[in-house]
Order: sequence, then structure tokens, then C-alpha cells
Amino acid sequence: MASAKLKFHTQTTAPEKPSSGRKVTIVGAGQVGMSIAFCFVNQSITSELALVDVMEDRLKGELMDLQHGLAFVHNVKICSGSDYALSANSKLCIVTAGAELREGESRLDLVQRNTEILKDIIPKLVEHSPDTILLIVSDPVDLLTYVAWKLSGLPKERVIGSGTNVDSARFRFLLSERFKVAPNSIHGWIIGEHGDTSVPVWSGVDVAGVRLRDLNPDAGTESDTENWNDIHKQVVQSAYEIIRLKGHTSWAMASSVATLTTAILKNTRNVHAVSTSVEGIHGVQHPVFLSVPCVLGESGITDIIQQTLTEDERSQFQKSAATLHEVQSNLVF
Amino acid sequence: MASAKLKFHTQTTAPEKPSSGRKVTIVGAGQVGMSIAFCFVNQSITSELALVDVMEDRLKGELMDLQHGLAFVHNVKICSGSDYALSANSKLCIVTAGAELREGESRLDLVQRNTEILKDIIPKLVEHSPDTILLIVSDPVDLLTYVAWKLSGLPKERVIGSGTNVDSARFRFLLSERFKVAPNSIHGWIIGEHGDTSVPVWSGVDVAGVRLRDLNPDAGTESDTENWNDIHKQVVQSAYEIIRLKGHTSWAMASSVATLTTAILKNTRNVHAVSTSVEGIHGVQHPVFLSVPCVLGESGITDIIQQTLTEDERSQFQKSAATLHEVQSNLVF
Amino acid sequence: MASAKLKFHTQTTAPEKPSSGRKVTIVGAGQVGMSIAFCFVNQSITSELALVDVMEDRLKGELMDLQHGLAFVHNVKICSGSDYALSANSKLCIVTAGAELREGESRLDLVQRNTEILKDIIPKLVEHSPDTILLIVSDPVDLLTYVAWKLSGLPKERVIGSGTNVDSARFRFLLSERFKVAPNSIHGWIIGEHGDTSVPVWSGVDVAGVRLRDLNPDAGTESDTENWNDIHKQVVQSAYEIIRLKGHTSWAMASSVATLTTAILKNTRNVHAVSTSVEGIHGVQHPVFLSVPCVLGESGITDIIQQTLTEDERSQFQKSAATLHEVQSNLVF
Amino acid sequence: MASAKLKFHTQTTAPEKPSSGRKVTIVGAGQVGMSIAFCFVNQSITSELALVDVMEDRLKGELMDLQHGLAFVHNVKICSGSDYALSANSKLCIVTAGAELREGESRLDLVQRNTEILKDIIPKLVEHSPDTILLIVSDPVDLLTYVAWKLSGLPKERVIGSGTNVDSARFRFLLSERFKVAPNSIHGWIIGEHGDTSVPVWSGVDVAGVRLRDLNPDAGTESDTENWNDIHKQVVQSAYEIIRLKGHTSWAMASSVATLTTAILKNTRNVHAVSTSVEGIHGVQHPVFLSVPCVLGESGITDIIQQTLTEDERSQFQKSAATLHEVQSNLVF
Repeated sequence: MASAKLKFHTQTTAPEKPSSGRKVTIVGAGQVGMSIAFCFVNQSITSELALVDVMEDRLKGELMDLQHGLAFVHNVKICSGSDYALSANSKLCIVTAGAELREGESRLDLVQRNTEILKDIIPKLVEHSPDTILLIVSDPVDLLTYVAWKLSGLPKERVIGSGTNVDSARFRFLLSERFKVAPNSIHGWIIGEHGDTSVPVWSGVDVAGVRLRDLNPDAGTESDTENWNDIHKQVVQSAYEIIRLKGHTSWAMASSVATLTTAILKNTRNVHAVSTSVEGIHGVQHPVFLSVPCVLGESGITDIIQQTLTEDERSQFQKSAATLHEVQSNLVF
Repeated sequence: MASAKLKFHTQTTAPEKPSSGRKVTIVGAGQVGMSIAFCFVNQSITSELALVDVMEDRLKGELMDLQHGLAFVHNVKICSGSDYALSANSKLCIVTAGAELREGESRLDLVQRNTEILKDIIPKLVEHSPDTILLIVSDPVDLLTYVAWKLSGLPKERVIGSGTNVDSARFRFLLSERFKVAPNSIHGWIIGEHGDTSVPVWSGVDVAGVRLRDLNPDAGTESDTENWNDIHKQVVQSAYEIIRLKGHTSWAMASSVATLTTAILKNTRNVHAVSTSVEGIHGVQHPVFLSVPCVLGESGITDIIQQTLTEDERSQFQKSAATLHEVQSNLVF
Repeated sequence: MASAKLKFHTQTTAPEKPSSGRKVTIVGAGQVGMSIAFCFVNQSITSELALVDVMEDRLKGELMDLQHGLAFVHNVKICSGSDYALSANSKLCIVTAGAELREGESRLDLVQRNTEILKDIIPKLVEHSPDTILLIVSDPVDLLTYVAWKLSGLPKERVIGSGTNVDSARFRFLLSERFKVAPNSIHGWIIGEHGDTSVPVWSGVDVAGVRLRDLNPDAGTESDTENWNDIHKQVVQSAYEIIRLKGHTSWAMASSVATLTTAILKNTRNVHAVSTSVEGIHGVQHPVFLSVPCVLGESGITDIIQQTLTEDERSQFQKSAATLHEVQSNLVF
Repeated sequence: MASAKLKFHTQTTAPEKPSSGRKVTIVGAGQVGMSIAFCFVNQSITSELALVDVMEDRLKGELMDLQHGLAFVHNVKICSGSDYALSANSKLCIVTAGAELREGESRLDLVQRNTEILKDIIPKLVEHSPDTILLIVSDPVDLLTYVAWKLSGLPKERVIGSGTNVDSARFRFLLSERFKVAPNSIHGWIIGEHGDTSVPVWSGVDVAGVRLRDLNPDAGTESDTENWNDIHKQVVQSAYEIIRLKGHTSWAMASSVATLTTAILKNTRNVHAVSTSVEGIHGVQHPVFLSVPCVLGESGITDIIQQTLTEDERSQFQKSAATLHEVQSNLVF
């Protein structure tokens, strides 16, 4: 009896290439990791994707669910499992795995626990993809990006934290509601630590070449009668608020990571606020990782753009740096 | 003190329009509903989106999480709440809400429970958007699409079930693994009931004008030594398998609904297997809803394409129809 | 003998709708008009497109060439011809038709000749689509947008000139080469007249919240030793240069119009520099049309954003306004 | 005085990579070549593009016009010139250059003239990108793909002719008008020689699993009273018709090449009718290039799908092969 396969004439005897040079690995198949994967598949951001997680059953279900939608989009080669060999030859490895805060646990204890997790993950990723770029998403992202950098032995331009890119997006959305203008027509930056002590750079808020500070010189300060700083407070609280309301955050972070990934894979040289080593920037003297606007491309971070900060902004930035440095000093590798 | 708002010159005094004519409402903010919403926002499928659910807290969290990513994409106007007035003037209403099977519950009992839920939802949707198209995703989708049609009073071309569009995609993906060809270069259709008794149309499986049945005339039959029908078994089991592994299905269904929505909003006249009234098709005598290939556009389903079925396929189709008709006869509206 | 048509079951008896509410008409099938059309089809910007031109043969060839590529993209309904009835129910009409400067002809003579052409086009467009938005691309665009506004009787928010949106894009690209950053990460605006007397707003040039003027307070001025103003000179000369080199400009203008069309059809509220009535803006006292940053949506221009200009910029802007006003006063309608 | 450049902190000392691994070169900046380039930039198909042509002035104008639109899309690195060193490290080289038929010139003479042109182009491309895939678009495409293969010394899977991919698209569009269904929901293949003697595979025309031949067994034959074969005649004549009407064909070919390029760069394994060596296929005994459905990926053509042809189709295919073989035998390399 005839076999369907017989009618295909193989034109090449060349073995399939080990990788497309555009392969992306996502470590951690939780809500954030899988939302990123879905975004990649739906927007055809990568053509080769590896998903790595210890929870093999759950991961198998996620893999099937993604693959079942491939008939609706450009084909993507997806594999999954707990073996890091699956990640071999990745151009980019995105780490979303990590423990969450336990009741009564100190922040330092959490970082130490997640450091243990990264001690397992990072060397395996680098072993299988020595030329990879690492993009750390797990929280606390600034500290863990530093840890990943240390563990990886990679040059600093290739170890990036998702940082305040999503905080900046929240900032722009909230500003857009007040200005009645599309969020991507608003320019505004949140830098520093992703989370509570992030620094909104009010001096850079701009719509169509009009600076908010030219309209209201007090905007964002304590003497501001228009309460612009409420927007930064909302940015800080919104992650907690969303976790309280729906149990986790996922969509905005996935869109943020998709944007960073596009900039890297397409070598666009777009500028995004991501976590990088800021030693020598804004007066910081230690090798801590904090978010500043960075130029992204296929080599990772090629340049940092140093903004002009007010004394206040600069001092907040340095304070975050000092706190992180202290935590880092107590970490056991 | 200057206010930021003062420098904007309003150029129009025309009141904002009530709707863009492309508004989409999603009822039900569970995993499927929200994955659909994320897909819409990321792929810029609609520019106006309403999310309706009774769980207002969860919904608020989802809304915020979607909005915080808007700076990365084309702007979308999104609103959410439990009030159906938010859905006013929708071009398309997608219903993902519904109860799930309880232990020991009969299927008929579940349908009756979900009928009660639709009795609340459907009239409100139609009241606020009398010209809307309804796309039912909740399971059991064929029965509930019939129920929605009855409750809505809408012409049958405007009440559509997501049906076997996703089963067909699973079929194509699994065939693609065997043929080593991209899923969207494989043509194959699963029709009939979404779920256990779906009918794979083996006679239509085609790659590049080559019919599987021309290569292997037994493909899909009991006498097939190549076991092609294992693929249909996998399609049927895969939903259960994914639910067992990850707790729910979401990504493939979201991509399926995104594809159907695009066909409707862009009036493309693409052909998809969706659930529609099949009275008069393949010998069915009753007004039951089952999936067959349909031409989709801005009016809903404009045409049904009647495939040439084998006796076996036709009899399976009719058997599903008979079963559904019996369940329908016992439903209380 | 069987006919292929017999097997299609028409599900609806509803007549096809007159228009999707997203129909776009392009008047003029020259290089710019057709590049716009190609861009629309390739990026699925609209699902219904009418092409109108008096050169019916050429237009027929263009229509066929566009349609033959539809199998590769989302389906678009395209029609073409010299009869303006084809444009009926357009949401947006884009006018690229117009005469070009003859040797020895004065600019006023050219405007008068193109005014005669618009006297034929505009009333027919408005007759068939009374709710349309007009987007004028033909040169000299600022004067012709004024003429189109007068001829149309439409409210000013619905008559838009493509203006300096493309000049601003050229500005950003040239800045991007100097900054080594992606063009869409550069913010910078050229306003005023599209062409020789356009006004670069140096005070608004910004990368990642860093103002060029904060780095170099002289940037763009006569005393600037870094010669930033060479970039503006290049912007002004580049259109002439491209025409000299390849005979016409097309690609950048098509991308510019695609961006404006997306903002309008998707109601995004993005900000773009387009030509609008600037009476009352920057001290202009007459109803002339010049480019300023405008918020675009489905109603057309909803708001103008008034930038803070230097005395010099303001005076250049007013000078352009005065010149245009004088030409307008001599036009015969 | 401060320089803008001083504030950028370079994070990496790594030299920029020679190529992204996704670089594409287009040789020939005529209507087809430039429409392809515009399509690539607008749809973000590649992030690195080289344009090579001897007409440096025209090319400079085209480069500027493309670059001026980059602010509206994802950034693309574009270079242009007459020096093939610009094409170094291309993953794909697309050749659109070539002479056109002179009055009174025989077809063989034209092929010989274009062979001379390829003798200049192909070795330079291969010298600078030894691992490249070649995609030949110049006409007569089948003969020139053979010539390019011979000149290049590349394995046959890496020398591809754009072939009947565009004929198949024309076929699907014309069928779609008759079926009233979206072109990309129609399946139908034209194989063999691109142009006059192309072979429509009527047995494979299919909509939603329904074969045209099952509806009308005579479809496409001489005894067909429904005149389906008129559609193939239109396909053959349409290129001539478009050239007569607008002077050249461009848009559909550009969309076709964009689709092939996407399949190659994204390694999708989609099936397209492209020109490849058909020695051993459908009874052809010589190394001629003709179009058949091929699986495309990052290695080029990995597999050929051999359709089941009728005797008639097979004999037409062989006749084309014989004619091409004869021309090839007379070519001087």
C-alpha cells in the first residue's frame, strides 16, 4: 500500500541547521512566561521557541495549547521540557522562573532563595548557548539581574533586566488618560528600581514637543497643585492592585518583553528603560543593576543614555543603588 | 498656575461618536475570554473593546493589566464592568461565560444551567446592540449557539458558534507533524459537533493539491494500516488532555476566535468551520447547530459550503444532529 | 451537468451592506497614490478601497496588479474607475491628484490650475460621501487643503493636509543617523509649511527624555558650532534631491499617509504634524492651513497641540501664514 | 561647548557584528526590485537590506525615499550602491536585474543577453555570501534560475526561481471572483513554466475540501461547458495586459516575493510553487528548472511535493521541459 510519505522528494541532503540564529528560550511556564510565549507566537516575533520548566506536565499542556493554534499564524518551531539541552543555541534566554514572597519572609531571604534557583538555571543556559543574551524578568528583577550577571560570566551588555520598561508603559498610559492622547504619543520615563522606589523623570514628560514642566513647572513636585505625582503613586501601587484583583500580573509584562525581544532580534536600536549595570552613571559607585534608558540591538545593550536628573531624582536613584548594593553584599553565591 | 490642559486647542465641537462601528464585546473574563482580549489588543484586531463579567474585581484587574500594555501597541479604547450598557453598539459580541460540568451532573443538566445564564446575557446584549453578530464560545458550544439564537431573535446568519474551527486547527497541526509541512499549508476539515463526536472529513485532506486519499485510499478508515485516524482521536482527546495537564485550554481557542473576528470585522469572506443552523444540510431535518465550512463577513455567515461526504461521514453528522435535537427538545426556555 | 455554484447554500437573504464604514477612496493613481494603495493592501489597513482616476487604462492595470497579490494577504474589496459613484460611503477620501509645475509657471498659476482640478474632484467626493474625512496629499498641500476645505463645505476638523508629517519623519531619520538610535525613538517636529519654509522646532528634539537643547543650547541656531541645522536643510532639499535622482518621491509619503490613515480608521488619538486651519494659533489671524501637531481619530482632527515656540520660530510660522494668505486671496473659486 | 554625543555611555566595546544572519540583498532597483524593498520595510520582513544596482543615482534616490519612511516602521538598516561588497553575508540574494526583449530579438538572444548579465552578478554575490540562498525573479525566470545555478556552483536547493507563485496567486484571485470566497481560502496550483505554457492543475482546485472536479468533472477541459479554462487564459494574458495598461507589473510580484522571503527567513516550511530543478520529477530527464510545489525554509527548498497529474498535464509539463532544455543547450556560458 502506498505511504503518504513516498511522494515527497527530498531536495536536500543537508542536515537541518542546529538553530535559526533567532531562537528564544523562555524559562518558567507560569502566567508571565506563557503570556510572553503566546505573544511571540501570535505576533510572529520568533520562529523558534524553547520552553523550559520543571513542571513537565503543566508545560506539556501549554505546549499543546500553543501548537494547536499554529494553523492560524506563521509557523513556529516550539519545543518544551525540563532539560536545558532544549535551549541550545538560543540568541535570547528569558528567565521568568522564581519563588514568590512567603508570609513573614524578609526580602533578603527571598532574594537568597531566588539566587539558589538562578544558580541552577543560569549556568545551564550559558553552557548550552554561550553567545546568548539573558533577559531577566523574575522579581526582584534588579537584584536578580545582577545575580544572573555574576553567575553567567557574560559581558554586562548581554545581561538585561526587564526593569522599568513596564513601569514606564504604565506611566504613559496613565498620562494618556489625563492628556486624552494615545499612550504611544506620550513620552515619559520611569527609571531606577522596578517597584516601590522607582524614579519618575518628570522633566522628560513630553507630548508633541511640549514638556509638561513647561506647562506646569511644579509638575510632580510636592508643591504641585495639579497632583501629577498621583500618577506615579498609581504606577507603584498598580502591580499590587492587579495582584490583589486578579491574582497576578501578566499581559502588560508580556507586551513589554515582546517589545524588548523585537528590539533585540530585529537589531532596531530602540531605546527602552531596562535594568543594566549603572556603575559610573548618575554618581553610582557600585556594580548594581538599575533601569536607565538603553539602546537595544542584537548585541544586547550597546549604549546607555544618561538623562539630566534633578538633584532630587539623582538622590533617589543613588539611594536605590545603595540599598541594592547592601543586599547584594549579603548574598551568598 | 498654568494647567497642562490649557494649551490644547479643541478643533471640533462635534460630540464623540457613540461607537466606531467596530466595537467588540467579550462576555466572560475567564482564561479564554481574557486570552481573546489580549490577542485583540496585541494584534490590533479591534479599536474598541468592552469586557463584561459579574466578577467586577477580577475584571478590574484584567482591565488594568491590558491597559498598562497599550503604550506598546496601537491604542485601543477598553472599558469593563458588569453593566451591559457598556456593550452598546457592538458589531460583535463574543460569549465565553458559562458554568462547567459538576461531578455527577448530567450533560443535559449542564446545558440547562448554562441556558439559564444565557437567558440573562443574550437579551441584554441584543437590547444594547440590536445589529450585533453573536459569537458563542461557551461549551457545549453547538447547543448553546442554538439557545443563543432562540433567545436573541436574531436572524440565523448572525448567531455563530466557534464550533470546530479549533478542532480543524488541531487536526492541521497534527497532520503537519506527520507531513513535515507548515500547518497553514495543510488543508483539512473537522465538522459536526465540537468535541467527542466531531467528524473528520478525510476526503478533503490536501497538501499542495495532493489528496491524502489519493496517496492512501484507506486513510482514516478502519482498514487503514497507516493509522491516520489516530490523529482524529488525538484531536478529540487533546482538549481533555490539556485540561488535565494545565487546568484549562486557552491559547488555541483565543487564536481561533481572533481569526473568526478578523474575518467578520474585515469582511474577508474567508471560509471557517463554525457552528450554524444546518437544517437542510447533509440530510439534517431539524434546526440544530453544527459546524460546517462557512463564508464569514461583516453580515455574519453569508454562505455554507456543502462538502461531499461519504455515507459514513454523513451518518455520523446526522447522528450528532439527532442527539442535539433530543437535548434541545428537553430544554426549558 | 453540475455547476460549481449549486453546492453553496446561501445562508442570508440580507442584501450586502453598501459599505463597511471603513471604506477608503484614493483619487489619483500616480506613483504616490498607488504606493499608498499597495501599502494599504499589504498591511491590511482597510478592507474596502476605491481608486478613482481619469486615466482608466492605467488604473485598470494597477487594479489588476493589486488584486493579483490578494491571495498573499487579508482580502480587500477593491474597485476602480473614473466614476465618483465608486467612492460612495467612504470614511476617508485621499486626494493625490494634481498638476505639476510647468517651466516658467508661477506658483500662483499652479495653485490656480490645481484649484480647477479640485473644483471637479471635491464636490463629487462630498456628494457621494457627505460624512467623509478628506486627506489632501497633492502639492502645494497647505494651499490645496484650504481650497478643498472651501470647496467641500465640510467642518474644518474633517479636512486634513498630509503636511509636514513626512518632513518630520525625514527629520527624525536624519537625527537618528547622528544619534545612532532608531528613528522612532527620536522625537522631533517640523511644523508650518510643507516644503521650503518649514519650521524645525529644535526646542522639542528629544531622545529618551534628553533634550538636544539641554546638551547644546545653540542647536539649530546660527551660532551652533555643531551644525545641527544642516539636518533641516537636508530635509528641505531631500524632496528635490529624490525627484532629481529617481523622478518622483513615493515610498516615504505612502508610509506617512498609511500612518495617518491608521490613526483615523482605528481612532487611535495619535499625534501627527498635519495641515489644519491655524487661525488663532501662534498668532495667525487668517484662515490659512499649516501643519501643527494634531490629535487624530475617527472624527478627524479633534485637537491641536500648541507648542511653545521661540520668537524666531513663531515669526517664521507667521511669515508662512502671511504668504499663504496672500496667495489664497488671489485664488478664483 | 557640550556635544550631544558626550552623554551617551557606550556599554559595549564589542565590534558590531558583520551581519544579523537575516540580511537580504536585492539586485536591481527597477519597479519590481523597489516594490519588493518597500514591502520588506513596511512589513518588517527583514532588519538588514542591501540594494545593488549599476544606476547609482536612481538607487541613491530610492534609498533616501525608503529611509525617510523608517520613522513610521520598525527600524531597518539599509545600504545601497553598485559595489557587491555591500551584499556581504546575505542570507538571501534576490535578483530582479535583467534586460527586456528588444523588437525583433529572439527569445534565445534575450536569454543569452541576460546570461551575460548574470555572469557578472552571480559570482560576485556568491563570493561575498558563500552561504546565501539565491532567489531569481528576472525573466525568463526558469531559464535564468538554471543559469544562476550553473554560475553559482551552489547546491540546487539554494537556487530558487520565483516561478509560478505569482501565477498561482492570479489563478486563486480569479477563482475567488467566481466562487465569491476570499482568495486565500481558495486552493489551486499553476506549475511548470512561468508564462505562456504554464500548467493549471485543475484536479487540485479546492474550496473547503470541495474539489471543483467533484462538482464539474470537466472543469478545465475542452468539453467543459462552464468555461473554467478561461481563467487560466486570463492568468496567462494578465501579465501582458498589465504591461500594456500600466507599463510594467510590480505589486503582485512584490507580494509574492515577500511571501517567499518570509517562508525562508522564518523557516516556516510553507509550500509554494517555485522554480527548481525538476530532473526526475513528472518524467523529466534533464536538469531544467520549472515550478512545482516546494517546501521552503532556511535551507532553501527542502522538499518537492509531487502532485498527481493527468496525462495531459504531465505531457504539457514535459513539453515545457523539452523546450527549456533545448534553449539551455544552446546557451554559451
